[in-house]
This record gives sequence, C-alpha cells and structure tokens, in this order.
Amino acid sequence: MSEATTTDLYEVTMALSYLREGMTGPATFSLFVRDLPPERGFLVAAGLDSALDYLSHLRVGPEDVEDFAAALHRPADELRPLRGLEFTGGIRAVPEGRIVLAGEPLLEVTAPLPEAQLVETYVLNRLSHQTLIASKAARCVLAADGRPVVDFSLRRTHGPQAGFQAARLGALVGFAGTSNVAAAAATGVAAVGTMAHSYVEAFPGEEEAFRAFARTHPGPLTLLVDTYDTEAGVRVAARVLRDLDRGPGSAVRLDSGDLAVRARALLDEAGLPDVRIIASGGLDEYAVDDLVRSRAPIDVFAVGTRVGVSADAPYLDSAYKMVEYDGRPVMKLSSAKVTAPGPKQVFRRPGCADVIALADERPPGDGTPLLETVMTGGRRTGERPTLDDGRARFAADLAGLPAAARRVRAPVAPRATVSGRLAALAADVRRRIDERMPAAGSRPSRAASAARGPLRPAAHRPVSR
Amino acid sequence: MSEATTTDLYEVTMALSYLREGMTGPATFSLFVRDLPPERGFLVAAGLDSALDYLSHLRVGPEDVEDFAAALHRPADELRPLRGLEFTGGIRAVPEGRIVLAGEPLLEVTAPLPEAQLVETYVLNRLSHQTLIASKAARCVLAADGRPVVDFSLRRTHGPQAGFQAARLGALVGFAGTSNVAAAAATGVAAVGTMAHSYVEAFPGEEEAFRAFARTHPGPLTLLVDTYDTEAGVRVAARVLRDLDRGPGSAVRLDSGDLAVRARALLDEAGLPDVRIIASGGLDEYAVDDLVRSRAPIDVFAVGTRVGVSADAPYLDSAYKMVEYDGRPVMKLSSAKVTAPGPKQVFRRPGCADVIALADERPPGDGTPLLETVMTGGRRTGERPTLDDGRARFAADLAGLPAAARRVRAPVAPRATVSGRLAALAADVRRRIDERMPAAGSRPSRAASAARGPLRPAAHRPVSR
Repeated sequence: MSEATTTDLYEVTMALSYLREGMTGPATFSLFVRDLPPERGFLVAAGLDSALDYLSHLRVGPEDVEDFAAALHRPADELRPLRGLEFTGGIRAVPEGRIVLAGEPLLEVTAPLPEAQLVETYVLNRLSHQTLIASKAARCVLAADGRPVVDFSLRRTHGPQAGFQAARLGALVGFAGTSNVAAAAATGVAAVGTMAHSYVEAFPGEEEAFRAFARTHPGPLTLLVDTYDTEAGVRVAARVLRDLDRGPGSAVRLDSGDLAVRARALLDEAGLPDVRIIASGGLDEYAVDDLVRSRAPIDVFAVGTRVGVSADAPYLDSAYKMVEYDGRPVMKLSSAKVTAPGPKQVFRRPGCADVIALADERPPGDGTPLLETVMTGGRRTGERPTLDDGRARFAADLAGLPAAARRVRAPVAPRATVSGRLAALAADVRRRIDERMPAAGSRPSRAASAARGPLRPAAHRPVSR
Repeated sequence: MSEATTTDLYEVTMALSYLREGMTGPATFSLFVRDLPPERGFLVAAGLDSALDYLSHLRVGPEDVEDFAAALHRPADELRPLRGLEFTGGIRAVPEGRIVLAGEPLLEVTAPLPEAQLVETYVLNRLSHQTLIASKAARCVLAADGRPVVDFSLRRTHGPQAGFQAARLGALVGFAGTSNVAAAAATGVAAVGTMAHSYVEAFPGEEEAFRAFARTHPGPLTLLVDTYDTEAGVRVAARVLRDLDRGPGSAVRLDSGDLAVRARALLDEAGLPDVRIIASGGLDEYAVDDLVRSRAPIDVFAVGTRVGVSADAPYLDSAYKMVEYDGRPVMKLSSAKVTAPGPKQVFRRPGCADVIALADERPPGDGTPLLETVMTGGRRTGERPTLDDGRARFAADLAGLPAAARRVRAPVAPRATVSGRLAALAADVRRRIDERMPAAGSRPSRAASAARGPLRPAAHRPVSR
C-alpha cells in the first residue's frame, strides 16, 4: 500500500487541475478541530511525527501514477504532471504532547497549491486519530489521580497499527506501561502483563496454576485471582506468594474493581501489605474516576478497549481549510462553520487563556507561541522529538490547565480568544466578500428557498486583489 | 514493528510457562462475539484473511525473543523455548462475508497450547475490527435500499490501515466505490471523488472553478455545488454541464441532503434529468434511512467518518476462550459469561434459525455448516478467497436474513439455538465441575461475601479425566 495513493481521489483530481491551470502559487491550509467532543475539556496534540514522516518521504512514483490513472479511467500519460511530485513546503505545528483547544490550528501547511491539497487526507487522518486517542488517554491519567495507568487495548483497536498508537499515546500522556510488546520495545515504555483466565483453567486448580507460573517467572509475580471465586483466589495467591517469599513487588489482578476492598483486607491479613492490586476489565476514565472517588484500594488501573477506540467519542470534528492562497487571505463564512482567514499563531497565556492571532503577530507579554516551524522546503527542521520531549510538554501544559477543564465529568474547556489584528482582518475580508456577493433580494427566490427563510450569503471565496 | 511482538505480553508469559511445563497438548480456542452491539441485527464475518496471513507467517525470530526478554527483564537465553516458534495448528472459520450471530464462533483455533495462546491478541484484533466495520457498512447498504453507497472515511479512520479496511469492507458488503485510491487499486472497487470546497474557493467564482475542472477532466463530471449557495451552485453547474455538453453520467454533490429536492428540480428544469445527485457529509445508516424514507431524490450516498469508525458502537464484545484442552472439554460458568464446552460448528438453517452444535455433529436436514477448515498444519488450505467470493456470500446470506434483523432502527437479531448434544455436554461438564467444587457453605464466609449473597460456583475449569 503506497502512502502516495493513501489519499482521497479528489485530492488527485484537484492537484492535477491546479498543475494544468498553472495554479502553483503558495497556499496555506490550517488543520484544526472545530469543536471538542462531548465531555472533553482539552485536546492533546499528537500525530505530528507520523505526518512529517509521510511529508518528507512523499513522492508520486510511476506506479502511483498508474493507480491514479486507473482510478480516473485515463491513460497514465495524461497524468504526467503528477509524476515525481514531492512535498516541498513548510510546516508549522503544535509539538506533540501540548494541550490545544477548539479552533486552534494543530498544523499549518504552506506549499505550492497542488502539494498542499494532495496531502490533506493523510495528514488529517494521522493528526485526527492520534490527537483523539491521546486526549482520551489523558483523561484516564487525570481520573487515576496519581495512580499508575497501563494500556491493555491492543485486542480491540481498529487494527494493529492503531493498537501501536494507543500504547504510544498512552505513554505520551503518562501511562506507566502497555501490554503491547512491540510498542513497549519501540517506545521504551514498560511492558506489562500476567496471565489470562485460560491459563488458570488449563491447570487442575488455581494453586497449581500460580505455582507453575512462579516456576517459569522469577521475581515479582502478578496473579489473576478472579477466575473462579475472587476471595478464594486472593487467599490462594497470598498463600503461594508467602510460601515462595515472592510478595515484594508482586500484585494480584482483578477483572473488576468491585472486590478490591475485600482483596486488600485479605492480603493485609496475610501479611502482604506490599502486594498491589491491579484492576482491569472494561475500564475507562469514567470507571476509574468512580473507583478513585469510592476510595477503592486499587494501585494500578489497566484500561483497554474503551480508551483504545475512544469509545464515547470515536472521532474528532477536524478540518483542513485553505486560509491563504497566493498572498490573499481566504475565509469561509457561514453561521455554522467560520474559518478565520490567514496563517495563524496561537499564544498560550496562563490558565490556557489562549489567543489565536495572525502568524506574524508578536506575542502578548504573558504569551508563548504554540506553533513551531518543523519543516521547511520539504525537510524536517531540528531533531526528531522523543517521547520524553512530548511527555514533558504534556506534563507542563497540564499543570497550567484550569481545574474545570481537567474534570472527567462535565469539564469546561477554555475558549481561545481572537487577537485584535485577526478580528480586524476577518471583518475586512468579510466586508469585501459581502460587497462582491449579489444581494439576497436580487437572486431568484423560489419556494424551496423561501421555506428556508431569507437567503444569507454563505461565502467562502478568496478576496481578489 | 514485528507481527510476532504485536501481542499482549501475557500471551508470551503464558506460552513460555506452557513450554516449560511441557503443556503442549492440543487446545481449541473459540473466538466469538458474546452480544451484538445496540442497534445491530446481525454481524458480517470479516478479517479472516488478515488473521491467516499472520498465522501462516508467524515465526518468533531472535529479535522478537530479545524484545520479549527486555519486556520481562530477563536474559534472552531464558526465553529460548520461544525461539523459532511458529503456528503449526489448524483453523476452522466462517468465511468472510457470511452473516453471523451472537455466540457463534467466527473462528476456532486448534493447536499446541502455547501456539493457540500466543496468537490470541492479534487474531482478536483483526477479526473484531473488521467484523465491526463490515457490519456497520452493511447497515448503510440496507438503509440505501438499492441506491449506491460509497466510502469517504479515510480522513477520520483510526490510522491509514483502518482506512484501507473501511474501503475494502465497504466493497465486501456492496459499496459501489471508495475515495481511497490505494484501496481501490488493491481491491478493484471503483475510485470516486471530485473536488473540495477549497478548490472552488481557489478560483474567483464557481463557474471559473467548474470550467477549469472540466478542462482537466474529460468525460462525466461531478461538481460540488454547495460551496457558497446551493441553489446558485446548482444553476452554475447546470449551465456549465449544458454548455460543454457533459450532462450524461455527470453529477452534483451536496454536503447535506436537505436541498436535494430543490437541486433535482433545478437540474430537471435545466433539461438535465440524467445528472445525478450525490449526498455526503456526516452520513451514516440512520441519516441515509431518513433521507430514503423522506424520498429525497438522492442517487448516491457517500458515507464517511461515522461508518469508518462505527461511531455508534466502535468495538465488539469479542472473546477468545479455551473450549478444549488435551481432549477434555473446558467450560466457563458464571451467570454473565457462559462459554459452552468443546469445538463447535454452526448450522445455518433457513431464516438464520442457526443451531450451534458440536464440531463433529451431522447437520440437521435443512442446515449447512458455517465454519470451514481454512488452515491445517499452519498452512492455508485452498485458494485465497477473493473479494467477489465474499461479496457473493454476503449477498446470499443477506437474502435469507429476516426482515426484522435488517431494520436500521430497533432491529431484532435472530438468536442461535444450541443442539441437543451440545446442551447435554454442557450439562454434563457443569455437573462434574459442581461435584469437584467445594460446596458454598464449606468455605469461610466473610462479611463481604455474605453481602454479595450466597456464593455461587463460577467455575471455568477443565473437567479432569
């Protein structure tokens, strides 16, 4: 599967038309999330590295042109202008791990129009998905309130690659480990895991299973205690751990948080106060929040499916909109979907009182820019950021996020404001578009239009010079 | 990312323990979906080919052992038993495209216990995800009631690989095309797409944009008419199509279905009754159903995000459970999660009145088996099925699905029944487990237990010989 053809066909039809028409002037597109999903107080920017890998390697080869030609039912020869096309533009983006809000550009592309258009689908896919999952995972960390959270999602993510990202993005926002061995190896995060119920079932009884497991695995053990009866299972685990003197660092795992109090009491009675309790099984930030608030004595939360697919909000309302073409600001006007014109910058101010400004504005005294130049001339600038860089960024931003935005239930997201210059430009562009549009009354008014009420210009066109 | 390490660590700890303990007898695991998600009347089996590719290529190489060893904080030497491990077992599975119901095995693995365990995570991932998406897409085809449906989901799926599958699985259940060029090239399904709003915005006006598009693209055109004002856009499109004599086969696309009636009237008035209307923008089976019921004159439905991520139900309650080990049937007993013992077969009877039976039972007179042998000794048997094979299977099964299961809203899923022999085995195993378990009263009964009511044996253990 070629990355060049991993795109919507319309990107290709548009790029080809732009090339044929000589419309190769620089365009800036802005990628942002219009509105946060329900129950989200913030987003965590992610996916930039995947996008930059794609952009720096993109090259439309002869086989890609063949595929495009087949898709369009045309001879490959007629698609010659696409051949060899690479991404030669620049990227300004919010580094992975930073907190972003609705309407704030996650990434801006400035490149010859055909290139800036061609990359839309892939870049949207990568940033939308990874930002979605990082944001969901971050809520689990908040819910756990300092207790470790680990990722168990691989079996239910949307393919193994999504599973890899779920593990990586959990680590980005502070998860302590993942069950996914490949992701652990690639990211350096701890691999975690113990046994399934089927392991216990494969032996005549729990004690035989736990002792066999201990024979194979030296050091601290994690024993799954709820295959049959949880209380009995905890007693058996305690006996085995004591007999083998393997208590310190060991743990028991419950596939439900309900019995944690009883399990804790039994472990304490058995003289094993250091044996930890790991809860798993259908957990997400809501369930973790409930368990933490009920003071359940759980030491580690393993979250899986619901987090790996962001089950309560499995997509973001992301957009990739042209904001400037050939030096002219472009703006989309409609009651529902306003896109402010021009390349932008976001200034982070204390308490996430962010200001969305034009890219060439100077920061307010207490603001620092979120978007950084990460690619020029189709090449990455600077070092490839590490997972630790992202972790540090997230931790720092989280510390400045208002408490209302951090809540798991009914969070209140901060809203960015717009700089005076950006507001003035938007008003100016809007006025110039309105002047160019025919007045509503001058258009033929038919029954269907009248039924929708007075016509309102919903203009998105560039302002001509 | 190695496929061998794309697994939960616990599969590795268990496999290693089984190898060390000499527990390499044949085990059968059954993969099934316990309960259908809300608003689902059936599932479409999918993902088998991905699973078989993995199983036939699986080999634990030296680097994989290094990764496992690092994950377990042990010297690689101690994990030697895993080195070179391949999948040597057999697979019986429901071919892709067939309709399946809750509780019916999608796939059964019979292999030496360490192998059968090691492959759990990857196989669950592939079958769960692809069955989920195929089932969602099938509902769109039903809602469209004969009108073509196409896939526009790539920008919002959980990574590009999930986007590829969304396109492929749409084609499996009868979608007429996809915007995803790579998927179109790989599967032979039609690639579809036209232009974005940004294309229209890049020109001084709609007419200039449409004419430029027509200059680049010969033959039928699809023009996006709702960048500014939909009615005006339709008029401009009609004028351009008439002027250029490009009406036949052409279409207009609306990012909302609301204005389809007006658009149809305008096209008809312009003498373009053959120009089709394509609706897109946030559509899923519910929205398509509403539009079809309201008799909106839409010719093609483009579905995207909500279908590509199965937004209303983004995961399946799938399970991979041991049902036999070393010749002994294994059973899990609990009020919530019963797993019937033994390798199984499903017999499809008219109207999806399926019977779940033991694998060696003879079919009832009017029943045909769903599970087929697709791998023996670690190698695929027979030809790799084509997408057309799957399409034909889905179409045939769909024809036999009761109307109540086909409904988009409040469908009623058929429930499989259990054969007499399977029921008798389950009762026998349950009785033998109960005899082996200590009676509830003989166990220490503490406050927490008493609070949960009388103890009930929740036994999952194999029946000893």
